[in-house]
Amino acid sequence: MVKDCSIGVDLGGTNLRVALVSRAGEVLERTETPSCPDAGGDVVENLAAAIGWLFSDRVAGIGLAVPGLVDAQSGGIVTSPNIRAVEGVNLVDIFSRRFGVPVSLGNDASLAALGESVAGAGRDFNSFVLLTLGTGVGGGVVIDRKLLQAATELGHITVEAAGRRCLCGNSGCLEAYAGAAAIVAQAREVVSSGASTRMKNHDGNLTPEDVYRYAVDGDAAAAGVIITAGKYLGAGIASFINVFSPDAIILTGGLTGAWDILVEEAVREASRRAFPQLFQRCKIVPSALAGNAGIIGASALAFS
Amino acid sequence: MVKDCSIGVDLGGTNLRVALVSRAGEVLERTETPSCPDAGGDVVENLAAAIGWLFSDRVAGIGLAVPGLVDAQSGGIVTSPNIRAVEGVNLVDIFSRRFGVPVSLGNDASLAALGESVAGAGRDFNSFVLLTLGTGVGGGVVIDRKLLQAATELGHITVEAAGRRCLCGNSGCLEAYAGAAAIVAQAREVVSSGASTRMKNHDGNLTPEDVYRYAVDGDAAAAGVIITAGKYLGAGIASFINVFSPDAIILTGGLTGAWDILVEEAVREASRRAFPQLFQRCKIVPSALAGNAGIIGASALAFS
Repeated sequence: MVKDCSIGVDLGGTNLRVALVSRAGEVLERTETPSCPDAGGDVVENLAAAIGWLFSDRVAGIGLAVPGLVDAQSGGIVTSPNIRAVEGVNLVDIFSRRFGVPVSLGNDASLAALGESVAGAGRDFNSFVLLTLGTGVGGGVVIDRKLLQAATELGHITVEAAGRRCLCGNSGCLEAYAGAAAIVAQAREVVSSGASTRMKNHDGNLTPEDVYRYAVDGDAAAAGVIITAGKYLGAGIASFINVFSPDAIILTGGLTGAWDILVEEAVREASRRAFPQLFQRCKIVPSALAGNAGIIGASALAFS
Repeated sequence: MVKDCSIGVDLGGTNLRVALVSRAGEVLERTETPSCPDAGGDVVENLAAAIGWLFSDRVAGIGLAVPGLVDAQSGGIVTSPNIRAVEGVNLVDIFSRRFGVPVSLGNDASLAALGESVAGAGRDFNSFVLLTLGTGVGGGVVIDRKLLQAATELGHITVEAAGRRCLCGNSGCLEAYAGAAAIVAQAREVVSSGASTRMKNHDGNLTPEDVYRYAVDGDAAAAGVIITAGKYLGAGIASFINVFSPDAIILTGGLTGAWDILVEEAVREASRRAFPQLFQRCKIVPSALAGNAGIIGASALAFS
């Protein structure tokens, strides 16, 4: 049997996603299983069952995209705040013994970059920086069509030295300004500051989508929150352009839904900050694979 | 004749330095020639003469370390604020035709990193970030013993979004806080603010060395200037640790003379800011090659 596909697993998100993916990066079949953050060992069993469901002789290997810090050498997951049940667990050992194929793992945002490179918005670029704009900010870097082997915790560069506290313990991280959680936190501050804004009368918890909708509907305070996030995102993008001189910055994640306000402001800000020669040759584009990038990148590990 | 050495040229500094270097990175012979910033084409002729002086059948190639942005693919120098005479000049074309060996070029700070990797403080590390702390701040990144092929304008990441104006046009660059020019500018501001400091009575222009000496001699205002620079340097180092997860940060350039105040403050600040797991495995050390790193790195291009 020709081993012409592999299994990609994305451990980010509320459900663990498992897919059978062709060598070219096409998702052939996929399934999901709950991440059961409180169920201890069950996460591993659920995952094994989902992989078993898609497994066949055609499968060359298994790749795991893990949120948090991973040690690709040892196969150990160093920290994974979203799924505590797998911290310290050696999934590489467990699954390679169970399925008899090579198992690799990497950070989910890095593997999303690899996925975009293989089959998405990165196909046309030799080098690019992918930024995931979700609750937090993460990323991956592809240079010369290869994934940069580094932590690339791109949300945790300092953009405002004496700035807002970040969940990582640092102050003034990009993530503390340009992530979805940061946007919600700032919207709440605006509301409790007594400023004039329709967000005051919002029923239930504000989401980033709500803030965006208020902004689109003409609420200046809501627009201000998103524009501020965009400015910091632009400062971060400029830093990445000056460091990596990439052909492109690829943006993905929920916040890209606010492209016309958030990202357009970021592009303007980056154009003011980055070296002009480097900015001009760098395209800023949305991802093409959205939620499948991590799975496809993880599956690509089997062929790299 | 075995081609067992190469010629490295460093176009940074007030004199252009040219050296014959063994494949192992040992400087066998060296010469200098003035950079004549105002003499137009003479720079190229002076350089050709210096190279000719060291050239022989043993020379496998010529490498050029150029301050500023270079386009390694085309061999063109995009911008080189320090030596305007070579901007737009294709030295690769000129010298390869003249000497009949391959000629390569790269950014001087990047090539200093390559030099440290081949024969200096980077020999023991698979991956490291080199920061040059001179008038400005530059750098290079080595990952898996290979030079990262990117602009790596590490002095031009934004560390204080609404911060000091940088020569590059941006605001709040690392270089605008942690370079020698920034330290002198801040010392002058302290003096003209009327604060109590012996720097007030300094004869002639303050240099960073002067500021350091006043600090060592107990001048709190001078120490404050260097400590502030150290804090920003630490924020920058933390960002590089979170992005590159390097085995080491190697520091070079004149400001490392202030190690006990500047760098020790930077290390403390970085320890507070970087991911602890990444900070702990990262050594922060001085360079071993000092002024020869660029030449050795440039010469190494002939064998890479």
